[in-house]
Amino acid sequence: MLLSVLQANAVVLDVEANLRTLDDGARRAAQEGAHVLLTPELFPVGYAPARLRAELDPARLPGIREQLAGIARRNGIALVYSLPAVAGADSGGGQGADRAPVWHISASLVDASGAELLSYAKVHLFGDEERAAFIAAAQPPAVVDFQGIRTSLLICYDIEFPEAARAAAARGAELLLVPTALSVGFDAVPQVLVRARALESQLNVAYANHCGHEDVYTFGGGSVVAGPDGALLAQGGAGPDLLFADVDTAGVQRARNDVPYLRERRPDLYREWEAGLPGTPDRVGDNQA
Amino acid sequence: MLLSVLQANAVVLDVEANLRTLDDGARRAAQEGAHVLLTPELFPVGYAPARLRAELDPARLPGIREQLAGIARRNGIALVYSLPAVAGADSGGGQGADRAPVWHISASLVDASGAELLSYAKVHLFGDEERAAFIAAAQPPAVVDFQGIRTSLLICYDIEFPEAARAAAARGAELLLVPTALSVGFDAVPQVLVRARALESQLNVAYANHCGHEDVYTFGGGSVVAGPDGALLAQGGAGPDLLFADVDTAGVQRARNDVPYLRERRPDLYREWEAGLPGTPDRVGDNQA
Repeated sequence: MLLSVLQANAVVLDVEANLRTLDDGARRAAQEGAHVLLTPELFPVGYAPARLRAELDPARLPGIREQLAGIARRNGIALVYSLPAVAGADSGGGQGADRAPVWHISASLVDASGAELLSYAKVHLFGDEERAAFIAAAQPPAVVDFQGIRTSLLICYDIEFPEAARAAAARGAELLLVPTALSVGFDAVPQVLVRARALESQLNVAYANHCGHEDVYTFGGGSVVAGPDGALLAQGGAGPDLLFADVDTAGVQRARNDVPYLRERRPDLYREWEAGLPGTPDRVGDNQA
Repeated sequence: MLLSVLQANAVVLDVEANLRTLDDGARRAAQEGAHVLLTPELFPVGYAPARLRAELDPARLPGIREQLAGIARRNGIALVYSLPAVAGADSGGGQGADRAPVWHISASLVDASGAELLSYAKVHLFGDEERAAFIAAAQPPAVVDFQGIRTSLLICYDIEFPEAARAAAARGAELLLVPTALSVGFDAVPQVLVRARALESQLNVAYANHCGHEDVYTFGGGSVVAGPDGALLAQGGAGPDLLFADVDTAGVQRARNDVPYLRERRPDLYREWEAGLPGTPDRVGDNQA
């Protein structure tokens, strides 16, 4: 399966300009035969948590999603896009009628007909500005069969936590698609942590970043695709870029047979170890470990 | 604190030759002012699980430990060494009087007076030969204050599992010392996974490998020391080497303040996610691991 990764500069709250950039990327990716285009975190609205919270009318979100579905249909390519999403009452987002809605940072995979196959809301928010504008979600990443590859989603800071990628791998993920907004100066995230996530859980990881300035942020590109042996299959420069990488299940199976990390994990022990930590409430059975 | 890492070739079951190599490394490391010398997995006896199990008389082990304590005392330097260790009844090693003792792969930190400060037994055994010769341990890595740095031990395959390094970090570790025996062809382990362990839990990790041939194995060196930002502080070539790196708690604290990975983990969620997996027995109280 050929996947593509859009690395681009968004204009904060200029949705039409951002959708034109995304549409252009989808057209070029489809021309090369890609089955899916992964795009950066909050790309259609720009990465600017405080401004989004203050200035983006949530009533606009369904229309933006419709336009994104149209881009997928028109270009005949699946898309992963990321947007604010109003949190349901089950997500800790319950509020009185007089309160502003609470937002997650979400990501969605829509197929080439524009139908949503999978959605995810960010569990690990990064920094004070994100935490002031959004609420962290609590659901684990789900997995869906996409083009014969079991596919899952995480967002930005999530992938820096091995536990998040493990949760996807434990649910069968062979491909993790990760919209991100990573500031300059953190190259070790794609170069070390993303490669490690791919290798330690033996799956493909694609990580799509912004480039250039948005609001107070400067993004350095450096998007990557890492294979199940930790090797980089593609990597972006500092500016706008469109990456391509072939990913398959055979490489995942080969890696998992060679060194069976997922079979040889010892989750029961890890749970005991965690329960045995000083200060950890002892409420996992009556385990004394 | 200046740490040193011995990368060397052992001769299987020629303990005197291996202790001479280790003593020479300790002498040179101490001359340079190092406070501790980390040595590879099973170095005093050579890495050869099946031959060790068949040919090494466990009655020799206390004497070898005494010789190692003598090397520490004579050179005035702390040591981390790795040896087989007879498993206690509390470690799943109970057996009838007519049964051969069951062995762990262990690592010990002894101070410059030869006194043991810390020991650890390998939790993740690698491959059929190790599993036939040894039994996997179940205790989490403990932490001790060594020269003002909270220090812990893991062994080889353990460090490839993020959960093991997390367990040490959750117990306060700022320095992980890891004897290993890594065959050629697995460069991504030190270059990607060890660096990721250091960065994602923001601690120093030193990883000491064999080089050359031992029994049926070929080791490629490539020992590393990684800092709490994931950068390599030292790395070995393919042959015998003695590495040095300065490690401190200030760098650890700086990294943990900049990006608070350990504070922003969500262990309660991870536990729920794991319990929600299909096929996971919900019976942590009477764990069978």
